Amino acid sequence: MARIGKRGEFSMGNALVVHGGAPTAVINSSLYGVVEEAKRQKGIGKLYAAIGGSGGILKEEFLDLKTIGEEKLKLLLETPASAIGTSRDALKEDDYKKIVDVIKKYEIRYVFFNGGNGSMDACARIYRTCRENQTDITIIGIPKTMDNDIVITDHAPGFGSAARYMAAVTNEISQDIQALPIHVCIVEAMGRNAGWVTAASALAREAGGGPDLIYLPEIPFDEDAFLRDVKWLYEKKGGVLVVVSEGLRNHEGVSIVPPVMKIGRSVYYGDVGAYLAQMVIQKLGIKARNEKPGLCIRVSMEYQSDVDRKEAVLAGKEAVRAAVSGENGVMVGFRRIPGDEYQIQTVMIPLEEVMMKERSMPRNYINSVGNDVTDDFLEWCRPLIGRPLRRFVSFRGERLLSKE
Amino acid sequence: MARIGKRGEFSMGNALVVHGGAPTAVINSSLYGVVEEAKRQKGIGKLYAAIGGSGGILKEEFLDLKTIGEEKLKLLLETPASAIGTSRDALKEDDYKKIVDVIKKYEIRYVFFNGGNGSMDACARIYRTCRENQTDITIIGIPKTMDNDIVITDHAPGFGSAARYMAAVTNEISQDIQALPIHVCIVEAMGRNAGWVTAASALAREAGGGPDLIYLPEIPFDEDAFLRDVKWLYEKKGGVLVVVSEGLRNHEGVSIVPPVMKIGRSVYYGDVGAYLAQMVIQKLGIKARNEKPGLCIRVSMEYQSDVDRKEAVLAGKEAVRAAVSGENGVMVGFRRIPGDEYQIQTVMIPLEEVMMKERSMPRNYINSVGNDVTDDFLEWCRPLIGRPLRRFVSFRGERLLSKE
Repeated sequence: MARIGKRGEFSMGNALVVHGGAPTAVINSSLYGVVEEAKRQKGIGKLYAAIGGSGGILKEEFLDLKTIGEEKLKLLLETPASAIGTSRDALKEDDYKKIVDVIKKYEIRYVFFNGGNGSMDACARIYRTCRENQTDITIIGIPKTMDNDIVITDHAPGFGSAARYMAAVTNEISQDIQALPIHVCIVEAMGRNAGWVTAASALAREAGGGPDLIYLPEIPFDEDAFLRDVKWLYEKKGGVLVVVSEGLRNHEGVSIVPPVMKIGRSVYYGDVGAYLAQMVIQKLGIKARNEKPGLCIRVSMEYQSDVDRKEAVLAGKEAVRAAVSGENGVMVGFRRIPGDEYQIQTVMIPLEEVMMKERSMPRNYINSVGNDVTDDFLEWCRPLIGRPLRRFVSFRGERLLSKE
Repeated sequence: MARIGKRGEFSMGNALVVHGGAPTAVINSSLYGVVEEAKRQKGIGKLYAAIGGSGGILKEEFLDLKTIGEEKLKLLLETPASAIGTSRDALKEDDYKKIVDVIKKYEIRYVFFNGGNGSMDACARIYRTCRENQTDITIIGIPKTMDNDIVITDHAPGFGSAARYMAAVTNEISQDIQALPIHVCIVEAMGRNAGWVTAASALAREAGGGPDLIYLPEIPFDEDAFLRDVKWLYEKKGGVLVVVSEGLRNHEGVSIVPPVMKIGRSVYYGDVGAYLAQMVIQKLGIKARNEKPGLCIRVSMEYQSDVDRKEAVLAGKEAVRAAVSGENGVMVGFRRIPGDEYQIQTVMIPLEEVMMKERSMPRNYINSVGNDVTDDFLEWCRPLIGRPLRRFVSFRGERLLSKE
């Protein structure tokens, strides 16, 4: 893959890595994988990082990651957010041409674009622009999503840690609700269009806790059924733990909370958890509260999944290996190898097949009445959260002394 | 402390432990301390736990904790909530007499009441009732509060872990805000009347992250100053991280968010964080979001402070030792030993001095304009959160390559 440089000397191709969209708990782990593998590949010269996402390419804000010491690089494995920055810049049509010009200027042969659906769209457009300009630039996507909404791949780095967070924290909260069973608690999870993260809370049951009810954006929210379920459970148990997606919609497909305001492309909704807690207080007269860990779900290093981290590193390394071995215009994906033990293999998925698509939960992962998940989902999700959840002790269920 | 039993044989006095109010991350650690010390004390026979708080005494729902195996007991150190349950039952006047009757019936000589301000009030009333009835029952309080609002003691078990949670999580969130600096993020912390937990977020700065602004319930909230500060910081930095207490009040001492509803003694307010995020969107036209970890702050075992846990165990043990050595009607408190190194000693504080009082942050712990804490606060708080926070890596601040 080495090629002849400007002045005729033998020269290697440089590489560029860029992050797009919201960070996850392991996007830096994929970055670590990219750096480690790029160091091993003799065909790669400099490894540029664009600082601050795709805008960093346009502004030529680059850093050579090969100059960073190993000790510092290793910290990437347990650093949240994006160590090289990221952006949600919407690229304009002529930005793609400009990006290709910058790539050429810096003699970049391999581009690694780490991102979610939106970023894979940008990635595919850069790929197209490169083809139109007949360059020999290689574009490889590395998937990243806490929401798990990227299509075709079995799952993507970032989700396993978000899932672990929800499972572990729901387990912890449920201890509180059981120990002081005085209210209905609504926990709101991220994932506006896909319920994967919300659903993962059900894994808390393996450790003895867990939610009583789960509401997902894939199922139209029925207020009456919700209130009936909550009332019944409250009368039976005292404390009720409900986990809901931030994106719940009604039968008309409209958010159950009205939008607060629109600014540009962004629509601001009130919090679904707060809205439902208020509904429980007002319509049932039962004490209720709401929690919204929000960003905590994607930044928490303490709840990072070891499996997710390992796979994120793998995705980064595989992207580099794929690029060097001649792949182009593809995203690294995971395929689950059938069998009793959890195993994955990486596959290359054409960028055109993933760009701007969104994967929601299949119906067979949700129970028939739409207020919980199925065993099929739990089986699918279980390996992704990594090492077993903490188990807690309770004497509340012990046989009491007989009254004297 | 041994005494003569009903049928004239030599018999030991039994003990009773009960939890009151909301759990903390280390109330079970104090329970562990009580059990361990009670096992060592020859003068203590059975160690009854009241299951489900003070109501468990009235219903005589008891378990002998001395019968529980060591392996299970050790799990208490990393189990959130209350392994023996807790309650917020408001005791009625004649309940105190009934409680004393049950205590006598079970030949209980030592009562350990673990709780916050409200529980110390109940504890003091039981103590008074015992004195009025001329019993030789010993009542000892073990403090517990995530809010740190118990008076006289330097701090109380539960706060250190809540403080660690806020410091660590604020550090993590600030990485996200710096990596994708597109919005104002408002994190809401627990503590309706006292800002200790909110303030602890400032310790994130020691690890390189941290909040830009901190608003506490001790300082009347000034909307104009808030909007001005946020706008200025947003223009300067892009991402702004604000940590606020759930109990912010205006200059009239009234909650800045209107109450949603009242049920019995409980008043329900909307979320301060959501209210302020909405204000930023509407009045400044800047993207904003809000996080409300809520219960997560008091249940998270991953963010539990090792110092807090150690001190919680100590408080439990000291309560038992104090009871056996003849103390009565007191709560275990902590006094900080002056000196460079952090050290505490336990002190016995009369219950009457702590009951139903509330400690808020002193003015010298808050900066002059009221939007941050002071070094005095940081110095006081630092040792309580235990081992150092994680340090993260960022290449965003590295010197970039010069443009070719």
